[in-house]
Amino acid sequence: MKRIDGRSENELRYVKITRHYLKNPAGSVLIETGDTKVICSATIAQQVPKFLKGTGTGWLSAEYSLLPGSTQTRAAREAARGRMSGRTQEIQRLIGRCLRSIMDLKALGEKNIIIDCDVIQADGGTRTAAITGSFIALVDAMESIYDTHSIFPVKDFLAATSVGIINENDAVLDLCYEEDSRAVVDMNVVMTGRGDFVEIQGTGEEHPFSRRQLDALLQKAEIGINELISYQKNILGNHLGWRIGREP
Amino acid sequence: MKRIDGRSENELRYVKITRHYLKNPAGSVLIETGDTKVICSATIAQQVPKFLKGTGTGWLSAEYSLLPGSTQTRAAREAARGRMSGRTQEIQRLIGRCLRSIMDLKALGEKNIIIDCDVIQADGGTRTAAITGSFIALVDAMESIYDTHSIFPVKDFLAATSVGIINENDAVLDLCYEEDSRAVVDMNVVMTGRGDFVEIQGTGEEHPFSRRQLDALLQKAEIGINELISYQKNILGNHLGWRIGREP
Amino acid sequence: MKRIDGRSENELRYVKITRHYLKNPAGSVLIETGDTKVICSATIAQQVPKFLKGTGTGWLSAEYSLLPGSTQTRAAREAARGRMSGRTQEIQRLIGRCLRSIMDLKALGEKNIIIDCDVIQADGGTRTAAITGSFIALVDAMESIYDTHSIFPVKDFLAATSVGIINENDAVLDLCYEEDSRAVVDMNVVMTGRGDFVEIQGTGEEHPFSRRQLDALLQKAEIGINELISYQKNILGNHLGWRIGREP
Amino acid sequence: MKRIDGRSENELRYVKITRHYLKNPAGSVLIETGDTKVICSATIAQQVPKFLKGTGTGWLSAEYSLLPGSTQTRAAREAARGRMSGRTQEIQRLIGRCLRSIMDLKALGEKNIIIDCDVIQADGGTRTAAITGSFIALVDAMESIYDTHSIFPVKDFLAATSVGIINENDAVLDLCYEEDSRAVVDMNVVMTGRGDFVEIQGTGEEHPFSRRQLDALLQKAEIGINELISYQKNILGNHLGWRIGREP
Amino acid sequence: MKRIDGRSENELRYVKITRHYLKNPAGSVLIETGDTKVICSATIAQQVPKFLKGTGTGWLSAEYSLLPGSTQTRAAREAARGRMSGRTQEIQRLIGRCLRSIMDLKALGEKNIIIDCDVIQADGGTRTAAITGSFIALVDAMESIYDTHSIFPVKDFLAATSVGIINENDAVLDLCYEEDSRAVVDMNVVMTGRGDFVEIQGTGEEHPFSRRQLDALLQKAEIGINELISYQKNILGNHLGWRIGREP
Amino acid sequence: MKRIDGRSENELRYVKITRHYLKNPAGSVLIETGDTKVICSATIAQQVPKFLKGTGTGWLSAEYSLLPGSTQTRAAREAARGRMSGRTQEIQRLIGRCLRSIMDLKALGEKNIIIDCDVIQADGGTRTAAITGSFIALVDAMESIYDTHSIFPVKDFLAATSVGIINENDAVLDLCYEEDSRAVVDMNVVMTGRGDFVEIQGTGEEHPFSRRQLDALLQKAEIGINELISYQKNILGNHLGWRIGREP
Repeated sequence: MKRIDGRSENELRYVKITRHYLKNPAGSVLIETGDTKVICSATIAQQVPKFLKGTGTGWLSAEYSLLPGSTQTRAAREAARGRMSGRTQEIQRLIGRCLRSIMDLKALGEKNIIIDCDVIQADGGTRTAAITGSFIALVDAMESIYDTHSIFPVKDFLAATSVGIINENDAVLDLCYEEDSRAVVDMNVVMTGRGDFVEIQGTGEEHPFSRRQLDALLQKAEIGINELISYQKNILGNHLGWRIGREP
Repeated sequence: MKRIDGRSENELRYVKITRHYLKNPAGSVLIETGDTKVICSATIAQQVPKFLKGTGTGWLSAEYSLLPGSTQTRAAREAARGRMSGRTQEIQRLIGRCLRSIMDLKALGEKNIIIDCDVIQADGGTRTAAITGSFIALVDAMESIYDTHSIFPVKDFLAATSVGIINENDAVLDLCYEEDSRAVVDMNVVMTGRGDFVEIQGTGEEHPFSRRQLDALLQKAEIGINELISYQKNILGNHLGWRIGREP
Repeated sequence: MKRIDGRSENELRYVKITRHYLKNPAGSVLIETGDTKVICSATIAQQVPKFLKGTGTGWLSAEYSLLPGSTQTRAAREAARGRMSGRTQEIQRLIGRCLRSIMDLKALGEKNIIIDCDVIQADGGTRTAAITGSFIALVDAMESIYDTHSIFPVKDFLAATSVGIINENDAVLDLCYEEDSRAVVDMNVVMTGRGDFVEIQGTGEEHPFSRRQLDALLQKAEIGINELISYQKNILGNHLGWRIGREP
Repeated sequence: MKRIDGRSENELRYVKITRHYLKNPAGSVLIETGDTKVICSATIAQQVPKFLKGTGTGWLSAEYSLLPGSTQTRAAREAARGRMSGRTQEIQRLIGRCLRSIMDLKALGEKNIIIDCDVIQADGGTRTAAITGSFIALVDAMESIYDTHSIFPVKDFLAATSVGIINENDAVLDLCYEEDSRAVVDMNVVMTGRGDFVEIQGTGEEHPFSRRQLDALLQKAEIGINELISYQKNILGNHLGWRIGREP
Repeated sequence: MKRIDGRSENELRYVKITRHYLKNPAGSVLIETGDTKVICSATIAQQVPKFLKGTGTGWLSAEYSLLPGSTQTRAAREAARGRMSGRTQEIQRLIGRCLRSIMDLKALGEKNIIIDCDVIQADGGTRTAAITGSFIALVDAMESIYDTHSIFPVKDFLAATSVGIINENDAVLDLCYEEDSRAVVDMNVVMTGRGDFVEIQGTGEEHPFSRRQLDALLQKAEIGINELISYQKNILGNHLGWRIGREP
Repeated sequence: MKRIDGRSENELRYVKITRHYLKNPAGSVLIETGDTKVICSATIAQQVPKFLKGTGTGWLSAEYSLLPGSTQTRAAREAARGRMSGRTQEIQRLIGRCLRSIMDLKALGEKNIIIDCDVIQADGGTRTAAITGSFIALVDAMESIYDTHSIFPVKDFLAATSVGIINENDAVLDLCYEEDSRAVVDMNVVMTGRGDFVEIQGTGEEHPFSRRQLDALLQKAEIGINELISYQKNILGNHLGWRIGREP
């Protein structure tokens, strides 16, 4: 099979995460996967949601936005339309849910972490890049307030990628926009460093998919996510990576 | 394993679909699955979305709402708050996507079908009940305008159910609210009459899940959906069921 | 005079109130008057409006909505448009005002009752059916928290109906949609068990009406409301009906 | 009975209508009834509502607003809150309905008249003053475009007042704010020059009212409205008043 | 040079400020400059913005609105559109900023002054008239609560006018609507009684302007504002004018 | 005088403009002035505002936004609050007005240019950086559609900077956030390549300013803007810079 950008079916696009990208938030990165570029930042706020007040437990929520100039056709600004689209809300709920799954919210204490994912340039896979990048911003933010004597509230690594079926029956890893817009099945997979699934979202609106196709997609996702988590470990370094999932 | 309402792990709740529930829409049902009750209606409108004008192709979109009195704690009315929640938008996007997957939108012609799912009483599984019930409302609406000489624009059967992991490691079919609120993994599965997946949405926010657990969940979903589709065939009857997926 | 559905000018449509229709709210009914069907529920909340905080006095407010599939032409969902129409707000203000008129808000204590009226099917007279049905839901909700040793906070019975002038000069009771849309004068009347008026809203946009016509309309309204209150007494039964308007 | 401002029970407050109050709208007045002051203007627009396009028939709608400084406690600006209150919408629907009742919308032709009622100072009876004043603004606007050879599209005079029951059992005409806030029954009545009712809105939230009380209220309203219509005839003058309700 | 209304280039339109125009707000005026008419009122509220709570310091903010009938073409009501235009927000931010500049917010104490500027008729210069008029409403409101033994919290006089360049190169003072809509440069200037600038907003969207033109414009503005402040002193009278900027 | 970052009073911060920063918009840059970083993009749309339809004349409008992570304290996302703040609207109106002032909208033809300014990091002067950077994005967008045989629709260079008074009486050029938050007078100045003013917005909310201070501020602004325009000429190069303001 021939992919549009010459990659093999099991090949991720070139990934790069630049840490400490902004000077104000507690943690922030620029993640680039191919031409997709997302700024992810993690801010620590004191105000937890109402249902957690006084419980000693923290929370994490995420917001996501496309810059108007990020897409092929200019994306209308949601602030101008006065409301977020369903797609935006769905994505920010997903990002929040996934990052909460690897947080020890009890150890976090009564704090609220806000993850902001702003897409500078969109070329497919913005939500999965946002998850993979936000994980690093989150770890950096946590390091800024938890010293080595406290429980580090990040329990495991986390990364995400997309897989899909193109040309009727070819399962491929990490779809670019061109592939994504022609895919008949589209699946986002989020996994932990231990190899478990946090989220699987597969949709065959154009073409329902068989159990055999599902298995092929999940296998490719696993390959890609393993690679992404290796890269995350690499850039965090031993010192910081070692704290994830360990008690003091 | 002992379930809260005495069911076995592979057992659906009692399901009942009442056809022609409302007198005005082209198709409408009341679907009851246990204590979950949803009115689903299908209205045929002439105005397709802008991007389809003049293409001869039709569209289908869905709206979903909880009646304030449907939930344990009163659900604030979204019209009063002035906007739909992220959860609502996510669900209506899901319902629309799934029903479009079994429609021949070309054969439908330049029409817009609006599916309304209004939850009268919520006891878990409202979105999957909405899909299973809306399918029948859709078929009835289609029968009202397509005679046996035209291509019937419904290509396949469609039903949905939820599966999940409770008590740390028990995979169960069709969660009621009580189970759902305690589940560590929660998955919605939508399948066609041919046995293919249209949508898989699994989330392990409380507890990432292994590949083996995923397989167990999908197997239970398949059992439940087969049963639901048998019931759908039964209530539509031979005459109408026969038209689904067949050319004139 | 010949009415479209064969009724005489002083004849109500068939009325049926199903109590305990939903399992979650403190009180709930389905009221059917002809083809008009409304779910009315009463929820007891602790949060009174700001102006009553600390006064020991309670409040009651109402919300009203048409299900999209309830009307001949699909009613656009107000949550999707982002705001309630003027008609909706007018109706919910009316329902709240009328039910407050028969409540002893001092005896209620610092509680907030929310009445939800959701129209499942609309065939004229939805707001008056909502009032008549909500009264029962309210009584049931009150019974759930006030035992026979406290002042029962419902002071009197309450029911409503519509009257109007059709065919230029025929006053009729309880208009169905067909009649309502052709009426030249349209009036909603709300009365108590003692036979006093709580609300009179008459409008002759198409045709101003004389004093003599007004008198004819009010007389018909009185006939209809007496009958509705008899029915309410009947379904509540002696035990509960007896508590209304009596001190312990 | 002694009223707070010394008036007798059948006495209107001092009324004054200043015609041509603004230079831009086709018709505009300042109406003062006691301390209540409302600017009413009538603008003629070409764009009729969608349901009238191409029918040759016109429309009239009204908007109403309280200036923030008009009330005892500053009224929050609805533009700042982002939506109109239920009270505002109810009032503007009432004003529109009443003025349409005396318009020959066919003779008006496919035009849209917008009535703006802006309350400069509120001391009770703002909605009825708005109706009485807008009638004059409407006549002036109509005179600006219909010469004596066309059908004058205003069919009858129109005025409104409030009546109410204070001190438990005293029916009084034209309530000022002080009286209105203590009234147990409150009724707005709108009548034509021919003496017919266009609208009756009576509410006894504090105290249901008997048929005898209703009759007393309506009688007072009639006295007041007759007087207001005499004043309207007076300020319009013979020449213009004569055209109302007459064919060319 | 010949101006449209016969004025010389350094001539203000006729100005008139009517004090105590409304009975409810603490201070209120009607300011008329030519055909521009603005009601300005000052209300004293106890609730300061969050960032000032507990600081002992007060605040002042302004709101501005055009009545629909005030403009040549009817101005759509912002409450109906559900949001304030950018122009409105810009003007109310300007008015607030300017009036705060001459307030001793410490001496004011923890109070919030709300300035409402409602334009009854617009003929150019509404924002500068709003500033000049609101100053008087503010002084009257302050007099109502600060006796001669306290520090009077108004530190200086304040007035505003517009200047502009018309006919390519003629600098003129106080533009009416006709001139304003044809001006190539448009500038609003706000100055204190001591002759200092509080705000300069000049824009040459149609035609960038030179330094020499700027100097000419500022000189005219100074002439106009001096005259307006003389008028303000005149109507406030010695007794009250004397308190401005003086300690007790 | 000693500035916080060691600059002299007439010294700009280090400026850098990276052209072609995004791949999708017709023109796009990243402008950095000190720690302030803004992505500016120019998109060419076919849909002009209603008032220009059929006139053959084009339009340009601007949108501005702060990324949540750009500011010291996280800036709440305006899409989440459902509306743009007054500050945002004021800034985008300013940017649009300034860029229109150097456009030949007739030569542009019936097109609509949308300028998007997204602040990645904010350290004072974001609106002036947005203007200076957007100018380059605009020129690049124009070059993409106008060849050397057509009138190039950009008539002149355009740049902007801020000036202000700090420490009571020191006029300084190009304020960073630290200085800006303590400045008593704050002024934004926008000038063309020919040395004329397009916009002057000076505000002395904390401290009204004298004519002499105004002169000092304007002189510094001129120094800074000359330097910025030299830099713009430099990066556009002779070939492209030469086309600005020249006929073919």
